[in-house]
Amino acid sequence: MTRRRRSAVCCQGSVQDRPALRGDPVSRMDREWTALALFFDPRLSASGVFSCASCHNLATGGDDNMETSVGHGWQKGPRNSPTVLNEAQFWDGRADDLAAQAKGPIQAGVEMANTPEQVEVTLKSMPQYVAWFGNAFPGEDDPVNFDNMAKAIEAFEATLITPAPFDAWLNGDDNAMTAKAKAGLTLFMDKGCSSCHSGGNIGGHGYYPFGLIEKPGAEILPPGDKGRFAVTATVDDEYVFRASPLRNVALTAPYFHSGKVWDLAVVVEVMAESQLGAQLAPEETVQLVAFLDSLTGTLPPVTLPVLPAETAETPRPSSEVK
Amino acid sequence: MTRRRRSAVCCQGSVQDRPALRGDPVSRMDREWTALALFFDPRLSASGVFSCASCHNLATGGDDNMETSVGHGWQKGPRNSPTVLNEAQFWDGRADDLAAQAKGPIQAGVEMANTPEQVEVTLKSMPQYVAWFGNAFPGEDDPVNFDNMAKAIEAFEATLITPAPFDAWLNGDDNAMTAKAKAGLTLFMDKGCSSCHSGGNIGGHGYYPFGLIEKPGAEILPPGDKGRFAVTATVDDEYVFRASPLRNVALTAPYFHSGKVWDLAVVVEVMAESQLGAQLAPEETVQLVAFLDSLTGTLPPVTLPVLPAETAETPRPSSEVK
Repeated sequence: MTRRRRSAVCCQGSVQDRPALRGDPVSRMDREWTALALFFDPRLSASGVFSCASCHNLATGGDDNMETSVGHGWQKGPRNSPTVLNEAQFWDGRADDLAAQAKGPIQAGVEMANTPEQVEVTLKSMPQYVAWFGNAFPGEDDPVNFDNMAKAIEAFEATLITPAPFDAWLNGDDNAMTAKAKAGLTLFMDKGCSSCHSGGNIGGHGYYPFGLIEKPGAEILPPGDKGRFAVTATVDDEYVFRASPLRNVALTAPYFHSGKVWDLAVVVEVMAESQLGAQLAPEETVQLVAFLDSLTGTLPPVTLPVLPAETAETPRPSSEVK
Repeated sequence: MTRRRRSAVCCQGSVQDRPALRGDPVSRMDREWTALALFFDPRLSASGVFSCASCHNLATGGDDNMETSVGHGWQKGPRNSPTVLNEAQFWDGRADDLAAQAKGPIQAGVEMANTPEQVEVTLKSMPQYVAWFGNAFPGEDDPVNFDNMAKAIEAFEATLITPAPFDAWLNGDDNAMTAKAKAGLTLFMDKGCSSCHSGGNIGGHGYYPFGLIEKPGAEILPPGDKGRFAVTATVDDEYVFRASPLRNVALTAPYFHSGKVWDLAVVVEVMAESQLGAQLAPEETVQLVAFLDSLTGTLPPVTLPVLPAETAETPRPSSEVK
């Protein structure tokens, strides 16, 4: 593959080329530190059982390796938990950005089952958090609030970037990908996968009907979940879902919004049939999977935070299901 | 307080003086690395929801800050989750050592609800774990087994040592403790607290009747949980519990085996009355709490492991409650 063609491939740039975060560098660093704590703090959930890291486990590809997550009261969520690595987003695009997205699971009754008010009371009850928020959001009168919590988590998630062999190859290291993976990349473009799975995350930006050519079975595409239709109420958006970002896809089984398929080779075949009307030869599937493997990246080391201890004012955990 | 008296205080040595772990250094390091992964791996639970770190959260003092932990099927455990820092043990001494102890929660139906057989199948399904166990237990024919898993977790937990201001003071730094904390230490010895809360962990070794002088109310000492009696079936062991290790006690609310009290000052008063028949002056309680605060230590930095990805042979998570 020529360097010219390389610049025209599915990816518009490697993850290293990402634009800098909003905000000045100092408060950004404080914000990341604050958010490292928030991301791991189970007291953001009503029960005290779940933190962001419970379903978005940074040790297992940024998701939880379950069909759909188990949340408050042992309830099962409706969709497969998406990875938080590389700034990924909801399945149906219902949040405008990562900050908006961080607010969702904390309030969802089947997930963390908390309220913005209780989160604020919780954070304000711990002087260390008050100090962290003050540093992270300098000059604000009342920095400890739900919006700033979300902004801080956004700042942390923005650091979860995972450069992969594919990036090294994009940057000129011809040996970073195997011949099989390179053949898979060629197929990925020639078959049309890259029409939807494009951009820095190789997917994750556009929304497309699942089953464009042929609807997969109800097991994989349950009729009750109409995807983006729930957000837009537009008939064209029935069964429309985000094209998954494919970075680290080898780590994030099970697959699809329904979490019903564990084998990446099967996923590739289902996608080819349902979206492209194509039957893959066994060798082609192997090559495509090898390309997907080359998207498995390296997470920057994450050191577990030391969280502030509760005080007398900290709301106590409640496992009650309302 | 004189240096001579220092050597006679409740603690027989600072945590830095601990004897070395069993095993040669190389396999010990491999074992710790393996165990870092095991400690954080939710696939040791049947549901895939809980890892050791869920209830023994290293970000919150090695416990989970809940009255009693929530486990498989949203069931509540019978007792407050004890910290894993500084090699702490079960409330009733039912495990002989940390390795034996690591096996308990994985199999408990209300905790991780797994079986040794399924744990072995899970670990053997991932080549990276097979390689790690091979390095950690060199020369063994079949190193991936439940016993070695427990030994590896023991090796990891043995690294979770938290030197505190009290240790610095023991080692000669007179300024490491406040005057109030030193006054609290004197009270701690003179009132008799150190009769039971002794040794390197300031407690954690002996088993004593809760309510030696006066039984606390049923809220704190529920009649249904007879403590060590369940292990020994000896009448003398009714309502006998381990004297808690007091390192990091300021971080591990709520307190007692029942997890019913959140305020450390109240805990100190309850202990004085029930175990020593003493009424503390308010100032004495403040000083004792200041001493307990000087036991809050610093955990070595823990970097989140990158866990091996599942394979086709890995048992799938099941949230079913049997």
